[in-house]
Amino acid sequence: MLKNVNPDLKISKHDYNEEIDSLKLRLGELQRELRNSKIPVIIVFEGWDAAGIAKVCNKVIRSFDPRGYTLYHIGDPGTAEKSMPLFWRFWKRIPSKGNIVIFDRSWYSRILHEDIRISRKCRVSINYSGIFERQLYDDGYLIIKLFLHISKHEQKKRFKNPDDDPCLKYYIKNTDWNPNDDYDKYYPYIDDILNETDYDFAPWNIIESDDPNFAVIKTYRLLIKYAEDFLSARKTSDSQFARLKYIPAPERFTLPDAEPDNPLNRDDYLKLKKKHGKEIQKLQAELYKKRIPLILLFEGWDASGKGGAIVRFTEYLNPRGYRIIPISAPSDAELKYNYLWRFYKELPIPGMIRIFDRSWYGRVLVERVEELCSDYEWQRAYHEINELEEQLLEWGAVVIKFWMHIDKDEQLRRFRERQNNPYKQWKITEEDWRNRSKWDKYELAVSDMVRLTSTEKCPWNIVLGNNKYNARIQTLSTIENEIKSKIQEIKNES
Amino acid sequence: MLKNVNPDLKISKHDYNEEIDSLKLRLGELQRELRNSKIPVIIVFEGWDAAGIAKVCNKVIRSFDPRGYTLYHIGDPGTAEKSMPLFWRFWKRIPSKGNIVIFDRSWYSRILHEDIRISRKCRVSINYSGIFERQLYDDGYLIIKLFLHISKHEQKKRFKNPDDDPCLKYYIKNTDWNPNDDYDKYYPYIDDILNETDYDFAPWNIIESDDPNFAVIKTYRLLIKYAEDFLSARKTSDSQFARLKYIPAPERFTLPDAEPDNPLNRDDYLKLKKKHGKEIQKLQAELYKKRIPLILLFEGWDASGKGGAIVRFTEYLNPRGYRIIPISAPSDAELKYNYLWRFYKELPIPGMIRIFDRSWYGRVLVERVEELCSDYEWQRAYHEINELEEQLLEWGAVVIKFWMHIDKDEQLRRFRERQNNPYKQWKITEEDWRNRSKWDKYELAVSDMVRLTSTEKCPWNIVLGNNKYNARIQTLSTIENEIKSKIQEIKNES
Repeated sequence: MLKNVNPDLKISKHDYNEEIDSLKLRLGELQRELRNSKIPVIIVFEGWDAAGIAKVCNKVIRSFDPRGYTLYHIGDPGTAEKSMPLFWRFWKRIPSKGNIVIFDRSWYSRILHEDIRISRKCRVSINYSGIFERQLYDDGYLIIKLFLHISKHEQKKRFKNPDDDPCLKYYIKNTDWNPNDDYDKYYPYIDDILNETDYDFAPWNIIESDDPNFAVIKTYRLLIKYAEDFLSARKTSDSQFARLKYIPAPERFTLPDAEPDNPLNRDDYLKLKKKHGKEIQKLQAELYKKRIPLILLFEGWDASGKGGAIVRFTEYLNPRGYRIIPISAPSDAELKYNYLWRFYKELPIPGMIRIFDRSWYGRVLVERVEELCSDYEWQRAYHEINELEEQLLEWGAVVIKFWMHIDKDEQLRRFRERQNNPYKQWKITEEDWRNRSKWDKYELAVSDMVRLTSTEKCPWNIVLGNNKYNARIQTLSTIENEIKSKIQEIKNES
Repeated sequence: MLKNVNPDLKISKHDYNEEIDSLKLRLGELQRELRNSKIPVIIVFEGWDAAGIAKVCNKVIRSFDPRGYTLYHIGDPGTAEKSMPLFWRFWKRIPSKGNIVIFDRSWYSRILHEDIRISRKCRVSINYSGIFERQLYDDGYLIIKLFLHISKHEQKKRFKNPDDDPCLKYYIKNTDWNPNDDYDKYYPYIDDILNETDYDFAPWNIIESDDPNFAVIKTYRLLIKYAEDFLSARKTSDSQFARLKYIPAPERFTLPDAEPDNPLNRDDYLKLKKKHGKEIQKLQAELYKKRIPLILLFEGWDASGKGGAIVRFTEYLNPRGYRIIPISAPSDAELKYNYLWRFYKELPIPGMIRIFDRSWYGRVLVERVEELCSDYEWQRAYHEINELEEQLLEWGAVVIKFWMHIDKDEQLRRFRERQNNPYKQWKITEEDWRNRSKWDKYELAVSDMVRLTSTEKCPWNIVLGNNKYNARIQTLSTIENEIKSKIQEIKNES
C-alpha cells in the first residue's frame, strides 16, 4: 500500500485557512448526526514515528464536542495489560453507541513493536485484528483506519530539529535510538501488515504527511466522507458484511438423560467431595504459581444446581484467588456496548479464577428465546464466541464450560420444594415459571449451542444433574482433570 | 484495644456445627434486607499475618448471594496505584447501593506497611482514613471493621506448620522474613492505630482468633448484629453523625462585575494568546517530566465561555497528555454510588492533565438549586469537597478552579446569538432558558460555594467573562502562573 510520498501533496497556509473552518463545522455536524443515530465510531491513527499523529489528532478533536469522544494514546502496555490477551485493552476501550474513540496508536503498533520478530505470534495477532474489527463492524461500528506516511528524508529532518515540534520532544528524550535508521528495514514489514489488514470492512487510508497542512486537510476530508457514507448506507440496509450464517441442524441434537446411572449416596458423596476438594486446593496454588488463568462457565436450566456446584467448588479455595461473576440481564450502560464488552472487563488476571454464573452464552440462550436481540445477532454469535474462546485458550487460560442438565419433571419437583421451604422461597420467582413454559424453545437453543460451540479444545461438559451429589462430583472432577492436564501440557512443552 | 488473647475463647467442633447453619441463614436473610433497603456495606478485615483472614472470609461469603458482594484482596499496590492518592484505589472499589464490599486487608495494611516508618505520612494517612470512612458513613454506608487477633505463640505455631493451612503457603513461599519475629515490635504500633481509628461511626471489633471456630462464629455474630442494628436505626432516623452544618452567610458574598476594566482588542488578544500558549506548551512537558498531575475545574454560567476557554488552552497541548471530562447529570449507574466516586475514577495519572468541564461542584450548584439532593447532602458537601481537594494537593497535584462569570444581560445576548446562528443553535436548549429563570437561586449557590470552598491553597479564580478575549487570557495566564509556581515550589524543596 505504501508508495513514495509525492512531494506535490502540499497545501499552502492560505488554502488551508480557506478550507479548514468549513471542514470543522461539517465534521462537528456529523459527530452530532452519528450521535443521534447511536453509531459508535473507532478512529485508528498509525504512522511512522514523527509523522505528526499527535498534531493531526489535536486538530481533528477540535471539531468534536468533548462529550462525545475519548482519545487514547496507546503506549507500552502496563504490567497488567502485558499479562492479558492482546485485544483486552482495546476491548475495554471500545466506544459506546453514539461515541467516538480515537486510538492514537493502536493494536497495529503493538503488533509491530512486540510481535514482528516472532513470526507465529505476529500471524496470530494479525488474525485477531481481523476478528476484532469484523466483530465490531458486524455490530454496527464504523471503523476508520489512517496511516500517516512520511518519507525517510522528511523523518530525518524532523528528528534533527525536534525543537520545531514540542510534541516530539517527549518521545526523543527517552531514547538514544533513532527510528530513522530503521526506516528502510521497517518499510516492507509495515507495507505487508497494511496490505494484509486492509479489510473490506475496515480498509486502510494512507495520509501523505510530509506537509502537515495536507495531512490535516486530507484527514478531515476522509473522516467526513466515511461518516457521510456510513450514515447514508445505514439508512438503506443492514450491515453488508454479514458473513456468518447460522445453519439449522439437520436434526436436533439430543441432550442425554439427566439421570446418572450410578446415583451416589451421601457418604460416598462426602468422601469424594473431600478427595477432590483437597486436590483442588493444591491446584489453586499451582495455578497461582504458574500464572494460569482459570475461567469457568456455568449454564443450565433454572434450579439445575449451578449455585450449589459453585459453592462446593469454592469451599476449598482461597477467597483471594477467585471471584464469582453472576451474570444477569445487561444494564442500560452495558447495552450501549457490544455484548462481549462486559465479559472482557471481567477476565481474570493470570493465576486467578473467575466463575461465571451464566455467561456470554446468554446471547444464544435467553436473548435468542426472549427475542432480546435480532436473528442476525444471535446467529453470528456462535462464531464470535468460538473466536473469543479460541483467544482465551491461545492466551493460556483453562476454560471449562458446564451445562447443568436436569429434566422437566425434576425441575418441577425443585420449584415446588423451593416454594414450600421458607428459606428458599426467595430463590424462585415468576420469571422461573415463565422460563419453564418455554422449555421447548430453550431446548432447541441449548442443542444449537452445544452443537455449534463444542470445539475440540473447548467442549461443553453436560452435567447429569438430576442427582445433585453426582452433579457436584462430576463438576469437581472435571475441574480437577482439566487443570491437571493443562499443567501437564505446560510441563511437556518446557 | 489489643489484649492478650484469652485461651478460653474456644468453640468445639460440635457447638460450631450446632450454630453455624442458623447463623448462615440469618446473615443470608440480612443480606437480602440490606439489598432491598439499598444500603451499601463495607466490611474490613485486618489482622496479624496468619490470623486466618482468608479462611474466615471464605466462611462468611458462603452465606452471601454472589450477586451482592465483591471481595477485594488488598495486596501491594500496582505501579499505577502507587502513583495515585492512597485512597484512590479504595474509592474506586466502594460498593454501590445494596451491595457489600469485603476488603481482605485494606488501607490499614497500607498505612502499616508503607507509612509506619515515616511518621508525618502516617499521621496524614490516618487522618484520611477518618475522612474516607466518615464521608461514606454520612452518605449511608454501613462500615464494619474487624481485626483478627492471635497470640504470638499461636502465630509462631502456624508459621511452623504452613502445610496445615494451604492458604498460608501462598504467602510464606514468597519471603524469607518471618513476621513472627516482629510481633512484639508491631504490637504497640497496631494498638495505637486501632485506638486512633476507632471512630464512633466505624469502630473496631477485635476477633480473638487463636481458635478458628471461635473466630468464624464471633465474626458471624458481629456481622449479624451490625446489620440488624443498622437496619432498625435507619428506620427511625437519619444518620446520627451529621457533624457538618452549613452556616448561611451573614451577608451575601457579591460576585465582582463581569466587565473587565481593560477590554482587549483582537490583535492584542492573539498576541497574548500565542505568548501564553508557547509557555504552556513547554510547561506541559515539564509537568510530564516531573510527574505532576494537573486538574482544572471549569464552572460558570451557561454560555459563559467555558468551552471556548478550554479550546484555547488545549490548542497548545499534546493530545496524549490531556483529557477533557465533560460532566453532566450522573447516570443511573453512577447514582448508585457516593457522588464523589465518579470523579475519583477520572483523576489523572501523574504528569497528565484532566480538564473538568463542570465538576464535583455540581453538588452545591445544580443539585442544590434543582433539589436533586437533600439539604443535608449539599450542606455537608462544602466540607467534603475541601477534604477531597486537600488530598489532591497533598498528593502533589496542581488544582485550579475557574468560575466563568458573566452578567445576566451578557448571557441573554449570547443566548440570542446562538439561536440566530445556524452553527450554534444546537448549543442552546430549553434547559438553558430554564436555568436562566433561576438566576437568583444560582447566584446564592455560587456565592456560598466561593465563600465556603476558597481555601488558602485552592482558591476560586473568578474569570471576568463579559469580554471573551480577556476571559481567555485570564484563564491562560492563571494556568501558566500556577504551574510555574508549583515547579518553583518543588525546586525550593529539593
